[in-house]
Amino acid sequence: MADKAAPDSSRRSERSRRAILDAALELLGELGYPRLTIEAIAARAGVGKQTIYRWWPSKAAVLLDAFTDRGATPEGAEAPEAPEGTERAEAALPDTGDLEADLKLVLRAAVNQMNAPAYDLPARALTAEGLVNPELGAHFVAQVLEPPLRLFAERLRAAQDAGQVARDIDPRVAVELVCGPLTHRWLLRTLPLTHEYADAVVETALRGILNR
Amino acid sequence: MADKAAPDSSRRSERSRRAILDAALELLGELGYPRLTIEAIAARAGVGKQTIYRWWPSKAAVLLDAFTDRGATPEGAEAPEAPEGTERAEAALPDTGDLEADLKLVLRAAVNQMNAPAYDLPARALTAEGLVNPELGAHFVAQVLEPPLRLFAERLRAAQDAGQVARDIDPRVAVELVCGPLTHRWLLRTLPLTHEYADAVVETALRGILNR
Repeated sequence: MADKAAPDSSRRSERSRRAILDAALELLGELGYPRLTIEAIAARAGVGKQTIYRWWPSKAAVLLDAFTDRGATPEGAEAPEAPEGTERAEAALPDTGDLEADLKLVLRAAVNQMNAPAYDLPARALTAEGLVNPELGAHFVAQVLEPPLRLFAERLRAAQDAGQVARDIDPRVAVELVCGPLTHRWLLRTLPLTHEYADAVVETALRGILNR
Repeated sequence: MADKAAPDSSRRSERSRRAILDAALELLGELGYPRLTIEAIAARAGVGKQTIYRWWPSKAAVLLDAFTDRGATPEGAEAPEAPEGTERAEAALPDTGDLEADLKLVLRAAVNQMNAPAYDLPARALTAEGLVNPELGAHFVAQVLEPPLRLFAERLRAAQDAGQVARDIDPRVAVELVCGPLTHRWLLRTLPLTHEYADAVVETALRGILNR
């Protein structure tokens, strides 16, 4: 039967969409990304494969929507329509006037998030896919990574205006100096990603490596 | 025909191994990692699929050997047998006594390498695979990433002994402060990866973000 643009059909579509997104996240946890397939998602969601392919070109595209949808929606709440790329950019970073304390607070929270499977599994899978699939990678960076990086840059610019950050510092470089090392440990699993590490990165980035 | 442990057979094996590794790198450039298959590698190398599966469990494992082999072997030279994990650890970082200049030199070279397809394509594909395949990821980190990170740490420890680096700095954290941001831009393609960026990272990491 062909879909009709009637209220019932649109409610049914939304139910299918949710079932597909939930199935994608569930199966990612059960199978891992390499073994995740559109077929498995369709079977778990109780829809046909063609229903998925009508809306998404690939399993990575399904997962990206599942991940950004969940991030934007508090448990059980209705997801408001947000302009593209602004989903996670509503809040600002804390500004108590103590840059070091504020950065440590935010980076420790980031460590908790990166170590939590509900974030780690989809974010890691989407990062991996984005590395070798530039189109998906660009969407992931724009929707998921850039909004928090911009918040960091704004917080550093405020500290610069307050005279706490050196005037010749590029806030964007400073942000990457703080976020790059955490992302490196998280993605590559070189060494444990802990609160102590987050604190050490903040302290070293703020004061510098040189003896003076 | 069954292989025999005779000189002819061992030369034939080595020829097949080289043909497989070369085919994997060639096809990676032509097809991209997602479309690379063991079948295509076998066809290009002129061997049977089973020959590949006898030596490697996956396309990622073939690619890791192709990449580390090439890295260890200067153009046209015989590859010497090196103990596992030491392939790239023979050289030391330059030490002219000027830490800033030395780090900029090495990081600019790293930028050149990350922007060169011959490094970028296999290193990016192996990183992507390693993110969702922990066993391959651990091999990649141990064989490819950790040796240069250890060289950086040694250079920073020497600067610390010379009184140039603050005594309370953990050299490993300092290394990641310098290498993490470059890896972040390289892998995630957030912004252009340039010599200017490498210089800015070194300057900011050495002097710190704070105004003092």
